[in-house]
Amino acid sequence: MGKKYICLDIGGTKILGVVFDENDKIITKIKKKTKAEKGMEQIEEKIISVVGELIDEAGIVEGELAAIGAGAPGVINEDTGEIIYAPNLPWRNYDIKSIIEGKFKVPFYLGNDANVGILGEWKYGAAVNRKNVIGIFAGTGIGGGIILGNRLYSGPRHLAGELGHMILNTEGPYCNCGQRGCLEAYAGKIAITREIKLQIDRGRKTILKDLMGEDMSIVKSKALKKAVDEKDPVALEIMDRVVYYLAAASGSLINIFNPDMLVLGGGVTESLGDYIMPLLKRYVERFVFPDVLKGTQIAQSVLGDDAIVYGALSQIKGRNV
Amino acid sequence: MGKKYICLDIGGTKILGVVFDENDKIITKIKKKTKAEKGMEQIEEKIISVVGELIDEAGIVEGELAAIGAGAPGVINEDTGEIIYAPNLPWRNYDIKSIIEGKFKVPFYLGNDANVGILGEWKYGAAVNRKNVIGIFAGTGIGGGIILGNRLYSGPRHLAGELGHMILNTEGPYCNCGQRGCLEAYAGKIAITREIKLQIDRGRKTILKDLMGEDMSIVKSKALKKAVDEKDPVALEIMDRVVYYLAAASGSLINIFNPDMLVLGGGVTESLGDYIMPLLKRYVERFVFPDVLKGTQIAQSVLGDDAIVYGALSQIKGRNV
Repeated sequence: MGKKYICLDIGGTKILGVVFDENDKIITKIKKKTKAEKGMEQIEEKIISVVGELIDEAGIVEGELAAIGAGAPGVINEDTGEIIYAPNLPWRNYDIKSIIEGKFKVPFYLGNDANVGILGEWKYGAAVNRKNVIGIFAGTGIGGGIILGNRLYSGPRHLAGELGHMILNTEGPYCNCGQRGCLEAYAGKIAITREIKLQIDRGRKTILKDLMGEDMSIVKSKALKKAVDEKDPVALEIMDRVVYYLAAASGSLINIFNPDMLVLGGGVTESLGDYIMPLLKRYVERFVFPDVLKGTQIAQSVLGDDAIVYGALSQIKGRNV
Repeated sequence: MGKKYICLDIGGTKILGVVFDENDKIITKIKKKTKAEKGMEQIEEKIISVVGELIDEAGIVEGELAAIGAGAPGVINEDTGEIIYAPNLPWRNYDIKSIIEGKFKVPFYLGNDANVGILGEWKYGAAVNRKNVIGIFAGTGIGGGIILGNRLYSGPRHLAGELGHMILNTEGPYCNCGQRGCLEAYAGKIAITREIKLQIDRGRKTILKDLMGEDMSIVKSKALKKAVDEKDPVALEIMDRVVYYLAAASGSLINIFNPDMLVLGGGVTESLGDYIMPLLKRYVERFVFPDVLKGTQIAQSVLGDDAIVYGALSQIKGRNV
């Protein structure tokens, strides 16, 4: 019997919850649908039920649970745990910290998911012992995390690191955010799905049509991987552009920060890393000074889907709980 | 009689040298052509002669000079003062620090010009008391300086802050650096001059033709200002695009850093600030999240051509000399 830590990755569509033991080992893991459309209390209840289930499954007894940590999308004050604004969740100035702490009587720490994700990679993953690290997380949208001088940089108002909304083409495609030519408008799964549909509507043959089936709302990373593995021409063409724009953003970021490491993570990278990484390293040379590029290692996330729960753990540990 | 400080702005075409008194007041100022093409010793001699002249003109006596500071283009180790690489000056791993200190028997501090420029604005200019500040300096080329958490961020290898080489269009015009669609390829004076020549060659009427005269190598900021003031259609059209791309870069940088302030400086801004700033503030809304933009003040440099010498002074003072 020793200290246990519960860590959550709270997304717009699912909650991933794990229990860490004293040696930073995951001993229990569960996944639940978020059903964010059912409103705030529904999510709050879902979080409470996930934590409760984790306590039961891991057999955590009274006094054993040391803290709960979580990453969630949106603008979050990492110091107070307050959610200031979450675009995909019905939360605004939501003091979830008090609610969770009141219920479970342990400290609760919350951070922005991409920020927490890069903390995970930096403490436990690809970027251990790197002083300056930039993280790009490509999934449904694209998030960013910045570590400078061994500290998370989230700006004076917890709004910094919107790396998915760097402008890569001033007259590029419209992005959900209202800008044009953002990285996310090229390389996020929403953009990828739109492109797949467009090509299917044009009558082009692709196994993605069968792989996606009835639900064309958002392509699954595993379907993309299968199509790329089978050398589906439409999938290869679309993913080639995705990597090209990921490389353009990476190059610009390396020219701006010259970090020790740039980490690519998120669901798309997790599934398609073998395809993405070599191609990205080739394309990036077009978008960054050769002398600047030399100092920056470009690496794939090693924690994959667990980056955020590990990051949440590092936030807890950083506070000596 | 009190301590005196000599500060230099060493450029590819000119050296600006000033003497500061104990109250941070400029008491003497001189400007000399660099003639960089005549080789390394020529520049070293020029620096020594400028310092000598400043000592004479200001009547600095034995024991009065406390230190010499300077900003120069290129990759410079601000800790050691070594010039690692300077694209527009014939210097490579050049230990100018030892040479100047040997000659004048006082400490010599050197930094990258854009880094030193933003330090100047932060200590003495537009960005006093701001914790996180981004500087864009638009002149012949475009330099950048980054202050985060009240410290200059130049990256682990003194290579960070290449804000002029952010990609604004992946298939945009070629830049001198070998990339495409860099901010500098749109908004630096080299790009502006190329555009002016192109329009003149097309036979378009513009007073810039007379204003530039025989020497078409690089347009002067004052000529641009005069043409804009007189509402020359070609000048307005070209400068409108310049401001648009400066705004695109500013927006992306605000999404990345969400700084307290973004400072626009350099010769082009210095001359055309009244035209550039209101237009830039309007265009930038297209390129940044409204909620993120709110927290960032966009301001013009107040030190203008003196930003680098003031920054050099702040580097000296920061070392308690």
